Amino acid sequence: MDVERIDNGINAEEGEYEKNGKKEVKGGGEKSVEEISESQEVPLWKNQLTIRAFGVSFLLSIMFSFIVMKLNLTTGIIPSLNVSAGLLGFFFVKTWTKMLQKSGLLKQPFTRQENTVIQTCVVASSGIAFSGGFGSYLFGMSERIAKQSDDNGSFKNPSLGWIIGFLFVVSFLGLFSVLPLRKIMVIDFKLTYPSGTATAHLINSFHTPQGAKLAKKQVRALGKFFSFSFLWGFFQWFFTAGEDCGFVNFPTFGIKAYKNKFYFDFSTTYVGVGMICPYIINISVLLGGILSWGLMWPLIETRKGDWYPAGIPASNMHGLQGYKVFIAIAMILGDGLYNFFKVFSRTLTGLFRQVRGKQSLPVANRPSTSDTSKKISYDDQRRTEIFLKDQIPVWFSVAGYVTIAIISTIALPHVFHDLKWYYILVIYMFAPTLAFCNAYGCGLTDWSLASTYGKLAIFTIGAWAGSHGGVLAGLAACGVMMNIVSTASDLMQDFKTGYLTLASPRAMFVSQVIGTAMGCIVSPCVFWLFYKAFDNFGVPDSQYPAPFAIVYRNMAILGVQGFSALPKNCLLLCYGFFGAAILINFMKDMMGKKWGSFIPLPMAMAIPFYIGPYFAIDMCIGSLILFVWEKLNKAKADAFAPAVASGLICGDGIWALPSSILALAGVKPPICMKFLSRATNAKVDTFLGS
Amino acid sequence: MDVERIDNGINAEEGEYEKNGKKEVKGGGEKSVEEISESQEVPLWKNQLTIRAFGVSFLLSIMFSFIVMKLNLTTGIIPSLNVSAGLLGFFFVKTWTKMLQKSGLLKQPFTRQENTVIQTCVVASSGIAFSGGFGSYLFGMSERIAKQSDDNGSFKNPSLGWIIGFLFVVSFLGLFSVLPLRKIMVIDFKLTYPSGTATAHLINSFHTPQGAKLAKKQVRALGKFFSFSFLWGFFQWFFTAGEDCGFVNFPTFGIKAYKNKFYFDFSTTYVGVGMICPYIINISVLLGGILSWGLMWPLIETRKGDWYPAGIPASNMHGLQGYKVFIAIAMILGDGLYNFFKVFSRTLTGLFRQVRGKQSLPVANRPSTSDTSKKISYDDQRRTEIFLKDQIPVWFSVAGYVTIAIISTIALPHVFHDLKWYYILVIYMFAPTLAFCNAYGCGLTDWSLASTYGKLAIFTIGAWAGSHGGVLAGLAACGVMMNIVSTASDLMQDFKTGYLTLASPRAMFVSQVIGTAMGCIVSPCVFWLFYKAFDNFGVPDSQYPAPFAIVYRNMAILGVQGFSALPKNCLLLCYGFFGAAILINFMKDMMGKKWGSFIPLPMAMAIPFYIGPYFAIDMCIGSLILFVWEKLNKAKADAFAPAVASGLICGDGIWALPSSILALAGVKPPICMKFLSRATNAKVDTFLGS
Repeated sequence: MDVERIDNGINAEEGEYEKNGKKEVKGGGEKSVEEISESQEVPLWKNQLTIRAFGVSFLLSIMFSFIVMKLNLTTGIIPSLNVSAGLLGFFFVKTWTKMLQKSGLLKQPFTRQENTVIQTCVVASSGIAFSGGFGSYLFGMSERIAKQSDDNGSFKNPSLGWIIGFLFVVSFLGLFSVLPLRKIMVIDFKLTYPSGTATAHLINSFHTPQGAKLAKKQVRALGKFFSFSFLWGFFQWFFTAGEDCGFVNFPTFGIKAYKNKFYFDFSTTYVGVGMICPYIINISVLLGGILSWGLMWPLIETRKGDWYPAGIPASNMHGLQGYKVFIAIAMILGDGLYNFFKVFSRTLTGLFRQVRGKQSLPVANRPSTSDTSKKISYDDQRRTEIFLKDQIPVWFSVAGYVTIAIISTIALPHVFHDLKWYYILVIYMFAPTLAFCNAYGCGLTDWSLASTYGKLAIFTIGAWAGSHGGVLAGLAACGVMMNIVSTASDLMQDFKTGYLTLASPRAMFVSQVIGTAMGCIVSPCVFWLFYKAFDNFGVPDSQYPAPFAIVYRNMAILGVQGFSALPKNCLLLCYGFFGAAILINFMKDMMGKKWGSFIPLPMAMAIPFYIGPYFAIDMCIGSLILFVWEKLNKAKADAFAPAVASGLICGDGIWALPSSILALAGVKPPICMKFLSRATNAKVDTFLGS
Repeated sequence: MDVERIDNGINAEEGEYEKNGKKEVKGGGEKSVEEISESQEVPLWKNQLTIRAFGVSFLLSIMFSFIVMKLNLTTGIIPSLNVSAGLLGFFFVKTWTKMLQKSGLLKQPFTRQENTVIQTCVVASSGIAFSGGFGSYLFGMSERIAKQSDDNGSFKNPSLGWIIGFLFVVSFLGLFSVLPLRKIMVIDFKLTYPSGTATAHLINSFHTPQGAKLAKKQVRALGKFFSFSFLWGFFQWFFTAGEDCGFVNFPTFGIKAYKNKFYFDFSTTYVGVGMICPYIINISVLLGGILSWGLMWPLIETRKGDWYPAGIPASNMHGLQGYKVFIAIAMILGDGLYNFFKVFSRTLTGLFRQVRGKQSLPVANRPSTSDTSKKISYDDQRRTEIFLKDQIPVWFSVAGYVTIAIISTIALPHVFHDLKWYYILVIYMFAPTLAFCNAYGCGLTDWSLASTYGKLAIFTIGAWAGSHGGVLAGLAACGVMMNIVSTASDLMQDFKTGYLTLASPRAMFVSQVIGTAMGCIVSPCVFWLFYKAFDNFGVPDSQYPAPFAIVYRNMAILGVQGFSALPKNCLLLCYGFFGAAILINFMKDMMGKKWGSFIPLPMAMAIPFYIGPYFAIDMCIGSLILFVWEKLNKAKADAFAPAVASGLICGDGIWALPSSILALAGVKPPICMKFLSRATNAKVDTFLGS
């Protein structure tokens, strides 16, 4: 997990949802999944890769790229979209095959393996929209962000050509680096991969009659809220002529609260995100918002002229903005570091035990075997058999990794002149180890620490390169590292899903490769659309502030230049929040599952520090809706809340497409819904009257 | 029924609701109502009049006066609130008695007779808010309205003192005028009184165990939507600093549509009204709005300078405003006249048959007796027995009528100097006949033509008085007539309700008298609060335009001065719409129930002519909600839609109380939510920036 991608909680949510959706999956029922599905033939791996599957994947990956990109560029909180991907993939192919079946043209029935292939491909593709760093390191190199930071000497503006090239060169390495380890991790170590497992259960459930019925209802709920959310986005658009206009600027709690960014901005996306995220994340975000914008920033502002110079613009890093950004960085780093060491130490001890005793892991980290022991034999036997049937030779992985590494070592310095070839070589030497660590840790805890590894690269390579282009080198290194590490854990998640749905590893791998390739083209194009369509893209307080771009760039600057540039007392505060983040995490772990779950997450708290708490209010409203719904009808809420939330997120996300096209075409909204204080309004009325 | 009080359709709604709520009522079940309730003792008439009943009545009558007043002053469409009154009365007293029962202090159980007493009292009291003419004839006399009309010579500004006096002097006459006829109308003629019957069934159903359970659920639904509606009103208030601000001015369909008054003004009141009113009324209102503001007014506006002078202000009657007001009047008069003759002829033929053959009425106008013949004997027997037990001597009625008539003939000319004592005497000579006609017609068709009789008085007395104060005399005469005629039919409705719930006629009469007295004090006070709290009260396009005030005044002017003052071609259009109103009504009747119900109502169509179609959009949204709800779950919609609608209406209505108090206290809303076109917004931004 990372700040920008809160996976942990979401997967917990999926897991719970699964528990209610279909009970027999967990082995407690009368018949195990594979006994039920025994009659269904498992198609050959090549037959799992159908053209229709990739067609659907392509459409969905465009949609999800829009959503992820929008989330990246607004607040950086990205919930897991695996459920939506699985659900919509099922819906599209099922509709398609049903139609064909009726007309008698159906050649190949829709299997769960095919569904897994779609899900894998879509997740791989939209994953690039995140790991491509369009909201973080990559856009952090641009001139616009450079101007907002202290170091505006070196920059590299985004351009479609080099971004696609860069992504193609670095995104496949992760796949090859962990490919040979799949048997060890999935079968020998029996790692959990909660996300992958949950998705597999979902897909399995879809392909039983009852599950299909529920899935259809869920799809209908998703569709309804998708339409609502899309139409609401469309409706809002009409009232956004000019800045500060429209529902996005609705001062729900009054003008004063609005000025401190406390307001409900009517974003269905974040209401949906709030419904998917666990309560504690929403509360953490709100707490962080209250602490920062409600308390600290107003207090620091009273020291204007003392702690920081009075006459500088609001976006200057030597002013209040500096406190916002660097305290957020301190907290993110503290949390990241703590979790890095936690996961790393667990990885090591886990590995140590595995190697020493050939024992499996402690019970807590595995699906509970005690009550399913009689079933495990059959299901596991069949799954293992299928999983091992289609081998991928080790030489293939090694050859693939080395080839791409060579190409990339030669090519990358041409893209980023500050990134010397020997930096890349060093990264590639360590990368497989880190990729393995990440994939292993993710299997244990469901936290992908991709961007923490990325930050590691920023600081090490940045410091190595020093003041001679260290900022850009650091950011580029971060990209290389993040892509490798992130795709590695994704791939292993998908192998787990494939294992549980009897999909062939070869099919999984091919699907992941194709999905990654799609993502390398689709994501930059989507980014480009946003970048070209909105003039004030990346500017604070605008529609798409891309908040993490400046955060990443400042981390790189910090790595290169040290702390000298910070305003007064900022460093002190940073130390405090860095320590607090570690302390809070430590307390959370010490207090055990029961009480620890009431401790807020420092990473989630840090996000509103920089961009303001308005989205926290959206998310808490989502939480509130879910809470009330669960009180009223727990079963229904559990079954439909993820679908409703996905609908809200997807509808608003896809509205970004027509909205950016309208902006590109120069069509401007006709009305401004403006909010004025009574005094200002009186002035304006006199002005308009005269 | 009248324009300002669409009773007909609402009662149909109640009737239908009743059908679903409790089947045995209609005599089709195994046991009749009175057989079920045989064990329940009927209290003495004095015991039916409890203090708690009048306490609850007083609270409810304040609430309903606010609601009726608000409706009066905004659009003039007032749905029947009998259901809410019955429901809330039941809820309050039931809660009260339950609490007492638990503490062992309950002396007298809550009976359906007591419930009827509350309902009667509340309806009588809030009825004054309508027949007091605060939105029509009474406020039509004021200087503010006079200035908007052509005749601004004579006016009489409202003042708490004379209004209360006036109401006390005229409101009780109607009660005495028809009191002796109750046996003939209710028992001999067996008149239906659909509203009264429906209310009685509702009250009967509440006092059976199953009915009480449903009632409790309905009250909960009402409470929920009451709170929502109240809070929404509160929330909206914050954004209404200045004119044209707030949700009330939300240009939902764009600025151009807003300028032609096509927008959704987020009024929960009218959404609720739309849910209560039958579809055809909502569609009529919308059609009328489209015809007038979408088509006719824009077309007439193109003739500016030709049909009417170009440089006059928008509210001048010689301009576009004249077309709006007089075409609406023509349509209202055409519809009123048609229905007057229709009801009058049916009254005469009905009476003729009664007198000649002692036969009861044609089957269609009575509860179907064919399948209930075996039951009718017992129920009717018991009801008749109770109804005849408590007699009210005829001399009492005659003495009461004559006494009040004398007082009033002496007093009224002191209030309205233009209203000579002989005008009043003539009115009082004809009034009992007209009161009887109205009560009889209402019993047959459920249409109370009170304001049509009022208009009759405007034209006759206005013409008689001529240009020497004819306008004020006409309006005052209208008030006298409306009060008599309206209370007469209300009383007879209540006798019917009392008959069906075994309530004593004496109790009914006393309750009606007390309710009327309450109304004579509460309604003027509520009006006074509105009048003092809102500066631009009665001004077109303001929050409380009181649209019918100007309509009534112009009718009086028309009666006195003739058609000379109308702008070019206006008279021609008036003739056209007058004829069209008659023709449409005629077609409606000719086409029978099945197809006729698809023909719009001219009266409903005329309302938006003057005030604009925005409230029609609210009402149609209410319709749409009901329609979808009925499609999804007919039984639930039928049982709960009236409760939900009442909640929406009551919550927003009661918000008028704190809102006017805030206005009186000088507390102004802090924010203005303004809607500007893109061009204007750019200007304003430059202005604010500099």
